[in-house]
Amino acid sequence: MANDKKMVEDITSMEEDFAKWYTDIVKKAELIEYTSVKGCMVIRPYGYAIWENIQRILDGMFKETGHENVCMPMFIPESLLQKEKDHVEGFAPEVAWVTHGGSEKLEEKLCVRPTSETLFCEHYANIIHSHRDLPKLYNQWVSVVRWEKTTRPFLRSREFLWQEGHTIHATAEEAIAETEKMLNVYADFCEKYLAIPVVKGKKTESDKFAGAVSTYAIEALMHDGKALQAGTSHYFGDGFAKAFGIQYQSKENKLEYPHQTSWGMTTRLIGAIIMTHGDNNGLVLPPAVAPIQAVIIPVAQHKPGVLEKAEEVMAQLKAAGIRVKLDDSNNSAGWKYAEYEMKGVPVRIELGPRDIENNQCVIVTRHNREKTFVSLDNLAETINAKLTEVNEGIYQKALENRENKTYSCKTIDEINAALAEKGDGFIKAMWCGDENCEDKVKELTGAGSRCMPLEQEEISDTCVCCGKKAQHLVYWGKAY
Amino acid sequence: MANDKKMVEDITSMEEDFAKWYTDIVKKAELIEYTSVKGCMVIRPYGYAIWENIQRILDGMFKETGHENVCMPMFIPESLLQKEKDHVEGFAPEVAWVTHGGSEKLEEKLCVRPTSETLFCEHYANIIHSHRDLPKLYNQWVSVVRWEKTTRPFLRSREFLWQEGHTIHATAEEAIAETEKMLNVYADFCEKYLAIPVVKGKKTESDKFAGAVSTYAIEALMHDGKALQAGTSHYFGDGFAKAFGIQYQSKENKLEYPHQTSWGMTTRLIGAIIMTHGDNNGLVLPPAVAPIQAVIIPVAQHKPGVLEKAEEVMAQLKAAGIRVKLDDSNNSAGWKYAEYEMKGVPVRIELGPRDIENNQCVIVTRHNREKTFVSLDNLAETINAKLTEVNEGIYQKALENRENKTYSCKTIDEINAALAEKGDGFIKAMWCGDENCEDKVKELTGAGSRCMPLEQEEISDTCVCCGKKAQHLVYWGKAY
Repeated sequence: MANDKKMVEDITSMEEDFAKWYTDIVKKAELIEYTSVKGCMVIRPYGYAIWENIQRILDGMFKETGHENVCMPMFIPESLLQKEKDHVEGFAPEVAWVTHGGSEKLEEKLCVRPTSETLFCEHYANIIHSHRDLPKLYNQWVSVVRWEKTTRPFLRSREFLWQEGHTIHATAEEAIAETEKMLNVYADFCEKYLAIPVVKGKKTESDKFAGAVSTYAIEALMHDGKALQAGTSHYFGDGFAKAFGIQYQSKENKLEYPHQTSWGMTTRLIGAIIMTHGDNNGLVLPPAVAPIQAVIIPVAQHKPGVLEKAEEVMAQLKAAGIRVKLDDSNNSAGWKYAEYEMKGVPVRIELGPRDIENNQCVIVTRHNREKTFVSLDNLAETINAKLTEVNEGIYQKALENRENKTYSCKTIDEINAALAEKGDGFIKAMWCGDENCEDKVKELTGAGSRCMPLEQEEISDTCVCCGKKAQHLVYWGKAY
Repeated sequence: MANDKKMVEDITSMEEDFAKWYTDIVKKAELIEYTSVKGCMVIRPYGYAIWENIQRILDGMFKETGHENVCMPMFIPESLLQKEKDHVEGFAPEVAWVTHGGSEKLEEKLCVRPTSETLFCEHYANIIHSHRDLPKLYNQWVSVVRWEKTTRPFLRSREFLWQEGHTIHATAEEAIAETEKMLNVYADFCEKYLAIPVVKGKKTESDKFAGAVSTYAIEALMHDGKALQAGTSHYFGDGFAKAFGIQYQSKENKLEYPHQTSWGMTTRLIGAIIMTHGDNNGLVLPPAVAPIQAVIIPVAQHKPGVLEKAEEVMAQLKAAGIRVKLDDSNNSAGWKYAEYEMKGVPVRIELGPRDIENNQCVIVTRHNREKTFVSLDNLAETINAKLTEVNEGIYQKALENRENKTYSCKTIDEINAALAEKGDGFIKAMWCGDENCEDKVKELTGAGSRCMPLEQEEISDTCVCCGKKAQHLVYWGKAY
């Protein structure tokens, strides 16, 4: 018992120090390991398996919506990065520069892609000539580099893994529809597969992607009341097309500029999972992306028949497509319980000699530690039903957390009072549309604008800051 | 008909100019597009879909043999790269250096990984302490960069996609067994799924990977008689462990150095597919990795019932798990035939009004253009049988090509005579083991040592070069 006590004590409690709790989990659940390159991490097998599950599901959703995968180079020549003015201004300060190849100095320095709009544009200019070449619906799974000053595993690292969708269309309408469609795909993915409720909204002008006409985002609320941007979808209009000279011959034989979008989600989602569902015993993983969905812990495994039965059960669950692991190591049952709680395995199956006699086993769900005795008959069905129940359970829990931490406010004083009394959370408050007011709200309350939700409400008819006529409901919050 | 004539004429014939034929195919089959970064390419949807199929199959084989995927950073600090002497000597001359992050000069420059042994070693040193931590069987799917002078799509590019397996074991025996096991996995993959016959062998000392005790490789013979190294598997002994201070406590409570391996295959495999199976009409794809396994071309598609039947057939084949496409565009049937021949689709299904009346269709296999009439009943079964037949057919064809171009020689004169009379190919000849002789064979014949095959034969008992006692049979050849 000493062993499992130790493991649990090793995690800082989230009430004591949320940031430390987070980094304890990423290390102790063996998701990552630090390296000697500041801000770059090793994603270890357990962490990478979560990412593989995310990839598999998302990639399927992209292909179902007609997208094709491609792969662009990782380098962007300086002159190419500079072609679109706003874009280069946004990204140049945070890129890594390659200046030498082997022992020779390069004629033109190359940046390691922070994002790939410029590379896609160069490619489009080569391959798009006629309306028959449109649309192109592309995506790539790669890593990108942004030279951040302060870094945190998954949330903000100098290199991170992501997918970047890039599409190009004949008309603005088509491109806008694509931007919205992919925002919905992202929201569906987060809610259905990660059990993370999100707010869909539009970013304010000051918070747009560099070079975009408009940026849409999904925002999630973490357990500590801070907001996390989980995915973005950008509409570019024809700005990039003009900067890169991409034109197509229309059906009417006229030269036209096409319209573009891009959209991305990253390994940051793993951070969102941790901070939405985790607790003081460790990770809590949504079943859809959990590398192990059910772990079988044999009790008194030295007794005759126990291991044999455990293996039989494992084979049965595996055949039903459940990701199952049998831990028949020599560690104590208590140690194993703590270990798989730490790793966030949704369902634990305990199986001992008496259970086997009674043709039953014990099932414990990770998120609420609920214990039930169930029959060994049709166990795969029972487990699958439990996994669905777990998914709904953690979604509801996260939704309640968000609702408890969402405050409607009409004045700056109300915002400050809500944050002081109830802690960090989403502030719903009206805004006149003036950037000065946006900045002032952040200055006076610490909460910046997160997004203008697509589902607008009218909390009052005046701006929370200046008292002039309100234009938009805005979600405000402190952000990761 | 003008259209399809044009397409076919657009490819240079391989007899006329093999190199030009190759680049024509990679461009016209839309596998890649060039970029403004020399030696870096865009892998387009059709090319990337081939890679995705390769990845899916290989990744399954790796997981079946107990390997886990991880992800290391793309950057290696200069001091880390330098820790193993032979390794840095081999790679430093061809790496790209990052010297600036944003506007600041880095304190220590970072290279973009040319391979990741050093990063894995740093990680091992952090996580391996006891014999209970061994073995670790890791793999990663990433891109790497090597600053090559002359580049060719897929065959030699500055950035390429690959997988790199890295494993660490308690004993030398285990590590050697792993090196051999993965060589066999590679050979099986090439022969079964890519229909490319390979020679398994060991590299000579001068041709080893930088830092390896021994390097194994699979070598394939291309249509033009040149050799292509398709995969390598390295045994490192404990050299890296010593350089990086990786030690574990043995069962006997002693500190020991573990033993390592690494192994890799790359997008070069796509080049191997093109040059093994392709012909003057374009690509010929092995069914296992073909993005489209069967294409349905409706004949006289304006006639009532044709498109409906074609869609019905498509649905039926899709349901059976066949990757099928229906081309109902307005291009002529002739144009479509040429297009999908160029793209190497293994099976073409022609379906016209008369066929439908007779409850049949025409099947044409890409590699031999054989035409057969088959019943529409159980079509999926028929197509699957055809795909198996195609795979065997192209494997046999490639094997015959290799056998026709493999020459056993006892003297330098015999080598030169064989190459002059029969063209480039594999030379089987004995070698004394002296590096001077190895160099001299290359100098006098143009054929370098490719590998010492695992299946040794004794062609003569003297070295092909110096006439002293022979130690090894060596495959020699001109190489990509």
